[in-house]
Amino acid sequence: MNFNALTPEIIVALEAIVGPAHVLTAQRAEATATADAYADYGRDHTEDLYFAPDVVLRPADAEEISQIMRLCHAHRIPVTPRGAGTGLSGGALPIEHGVVLSTERLNKIIQIDERNLQATVEPGVVNEAFQNAVKEVGLFYPPDPASKGSCFLGGNLAHSSGGPKAVKYGTTRDYVLNLQVVLPTGEIIWTAANTLKNSTGYNLTQLMVGSEGTLGIITKVVFRLLPYPQHNILMLVPFRQEAQAAEAVSAVFRAGIIPSGMEFMERIAMEWSARYLGIALTVPDDVRAHLLIELDGQDLDQLYKEAEQVYAVLEGYDVGEILLADTAAQKDELWRIRRNIGNSVKAAVYKEEDTVVPRAELPALLKGVKEISTRYGFQTVCYGHAGDGNLHVNIIRGNLSDEMWNVGLRQPITEIFELCVKLGGTISGEHGIGLVQKGYIGIALAETNLNLMRGIKNVFDPNGILNPGKIF
Amino acid sequence: MNFNALTPEIIVALEAIVGPAHVLTAQRAEATATADAYADYGRDHTEDLYFAPDVVLRPADAEEISQIMRLCHAHRIPVTPRGAGTGLSGGALPIEHGVVLSTERLNKIIQIDERNLQATVEPGVVNEAFQNAVKEVGLFYPPDPASKGSCFLGGNLAHSSGGPKAVKYGTTRDYVLNLQVVLPTGEIIWTAANTLKNSTGYNLTQLMVGSEGTLGIITKVVFRLLPYPQHNILMLVPFRQEAQAAEAVSAVFRAGIIPSGMEFMERIAMEWSARYLGIALTVPDDVRAHLLIELDGQDLDQLYKEAEQVYAVLEGYDVGEILLADTAAQKDELWRIRRNIGNSVKAAVYKEEDTVVPRAELPALLKGVKEISTRYGFQTVCYGHAGDGNLHVNIIRGNLSDEMWNVGLRQPITEIFELCVKLGGTISGEHGIGLVQKGYIGIALAETNLNLMRGIKNVFDPNGILNPGKIF
Repeated sequence: MNFNALTPEIIVALEAIVGPAHVLTAQRAEATATADAYADYGRDHTEDLYFAPDVVLRPADAEEISQIMRLCHAHRIPVTPRGAGTGLSGGALPIEHGVVLSTERLNKIIQIDERNLQATVEPGVVNEAFQNAVKEVGLFYPPDPASKGSCFLGGNLAHSSGGPKAVKYGTTRDYVLNLQVVLPTGEIIWTAANTLKNSTGYNLTQLMVGSEGTLGIITKVVFRLLPYPQHNILMLVPFRQEAQAAEAVSAVFRAGIIPSGMEFMERIAMEWSARYLGIALTVPDDVRAHLLIELDGQDLDQLYKEAEQVYAVLEGYDVGEILLADTAAQKDELWRIRRNIGNSVKAAVYKEEDTVVPRAELPALLKGVKEISTRYGFQTVCYGHAGDGNLHVNIIRGNLSDEMWNVGLRQPITEIFELCVKLGGTISGEHGIGLVQKGYIGIALAETNLNLMRGIKNVFDPNGILNPGKIF
Repeated sequence: MNFNALTPEIIVALEAIVGPAHVLTAQRAEATATADAYADYGRDHTEDLYFAPDVVLRPADAEEISQIMRLCHAHRIPVTPRGAGTGLSGGALPIEHGVVLSTERLNKIIQIDERNLQATVEPGVVNEAFQNAVKEVGLFYPPDPASKGSCFLGGNLAHSSGGPKAVKYGTTRDYVLNLQVVLPTGEIIWTAANTLKNSTGYNLTQLMVGSEGTLGIITKVVFRLLPYPQHNILMLVPFRQEAQAAEAVSAVFRAGIIPSGMEFMERIAMEWSARYLGIALTVPDDVRAHLLIELDGQDLDQLYKEAEQVYAVLEGYDVGEILLADTAAQKDELWRIRRNIGNSVKAAVYKEEDTVVPRAELPALLKGVKEISTRYGFQTVCYGHAGDGNLHVNIIRGNLSDEMWNVGLRQPITEIFELCVKLGGTISGEHGIGLVQKGYIGIALAETNLNLMRGIKNVFDPNGILNPGKIF
């Protein structure tokens, strides 16, 4: 694509749209001693990548975004939409420079509709803030990525983020009824209706979810909600063999139980997290992996019955002493360890692969990943949403050479992804393709599929200005 | 679109692809005394509409369909894909004549994967046959449209069919993981992977589901399945005011209960069905409507607890004596009455509107429909999936004039659909737009949305040959 550079005249026009206070440039940041904050708009949580924005815009609403897009469409200026910047695939990185369009000021919960169990929100609302707001009126918004305390709902929509509860409740896409979207050409549309069912034309809603900000900028969302589950039970199950932990996952579902969480942590993942959190963790020497299993529902007696069934399934495996969390504090502590594995890995230099396979293929995936990493001589820390077959494979830099880190890893990563596809899976379960997985997408998708996607992109964005260079 | 007519040479080429026994024409049907069966390929269950196919093809697999599409794409011959022909919006009608492509021979359940709770099937499998097959191994495929005994899974995918269980379990689209599709240009693709989560490129799967056979022909489906719920409770609740029945629907959900069925039947709907079935139905004179409420799960004690909570909610309304179905036979009988409302209406001359609104707006929708029908002087029979806000409005011909039936009804139907949209709803919840709602789609969708859909159609089908003249 041929893009044009921003001119002083365009900057003036942008100021007229969003107000000068919401047009940030490197120069102005320099002048106001906010250079660090400005530079953050060129980063996300993907490795240590950085691309400098030419200008950062903080519009207030869909109308302003529409005007920005009309202007940038006319002048062929690249626009990279951005939520909280917690993404793990580089989706928010302005690799073509130009405009970074931050949704941080679209941060209102517009309505919680208790009659219809729905809510209308803006994309800049933090996931956990939204969860808490609906919980206050007895409602439940399940998607809960590890970054829930800081990530925006808009970013969650961009990748259809999951989290531990996805195993029972599905991912972000399963809660979206309707989206207000500003198209790359500036028109504002609603994709659907505020209904649980809809057979009225092509599903633009689900096309938008997971499109990583390449087809439009989401400016309002209507989510469906559930009654809040009043009770939960959490258990930590130590396994003496990693493969058995992975196998037990499938067995629990086959017994008719659908847990609200089913997380896999290999021993080293828990150790890294505990060290990161400064917790003294005493895992017996013979334990190789843990499953963290959560059950939830409206009736505690019922949950204890289900827990007994889970115990019965686990009797068939070589497990250590199962820890049943007794108190809210104990539950929080276990989840804190699980949630901080990612942070502990981020404290090292690492690359994260978001592998996903059918649930029962998890043992084969785990075995294959370890075999590949051993063969190529690098360390991996594996953990993830085992109930979904979604394993986060973290490749640790350790003392790998620059050559190996920057170039040599392409081959083993390719092998890992090829294994996923061979097992019926694909290369990203919830993080998206963005920038860093783009080179591997041909492993998962045929050229015909990619051409259809390119064609769709062209329908929405004929000048190719919105989040250019991502996915394909 | 400019289409070409079938020539004898093309017929010969089609015979070479699928075999002469699977190429049907009016002439051959005449010669073999199968004219009636042949004519059925020009009808579906939508009113009494008929369009003559030029040729009917019954291919065996994706390979043959691919060859057919390459040929028809090259010659610009219209192709209308067809399942069991039970659709209610005219989606399978060959309005441009040309080829009717029947999926009836793609009728195999290829694999039920108990390890992964998945199944791979062909589109010509009957819904109920599939449900029964997975139930035999303890698994559950929830979508259950009224026509489940005859409709094909492929047709269910074309419109994302729902049915009573959608209120708890979602519609067809919620069970699809991956689709094998023959594109209008003949290429064969898989849309995704066999995983519960997928953030790898645009969601072609959900774009295909609900596209009413206009973007491709589905030739294999990978469904996810659930553990089969071992128990259920069914209750029939008589209301003395229709609006209260509609209001109670929302109240049950707000109490934290998610029923597996929540069906609304106005008095006349039950009466029509009972008469159709030859059942002596004794509904007290003061009863205006019924809710049929089903609860399901793995634990019967738990269900009785939930039933008590439902009773507690219903105490707030003016209800008659609640019938709790005791036996499987009693349950079957109640469901038979509910399922046969549609057939009883079909026995009359009628038009069916598949209105859908947010759940709590159902009373307003029902009131509006009755007001509109009274004002225009026609009778409606209303029933449907109240838990989803999905009300089937059947307009009965009665003694309406030809003028009123063929032309005059456009205005009141427009008013009904405008009311749906005003209430946050849309014009089809599960039947699709097809042919008969096409003239109303502008009420639900803006021109910008329609242009995006036309653009997508053009990406998939540049010659516009696949199911032409449908949706928009």
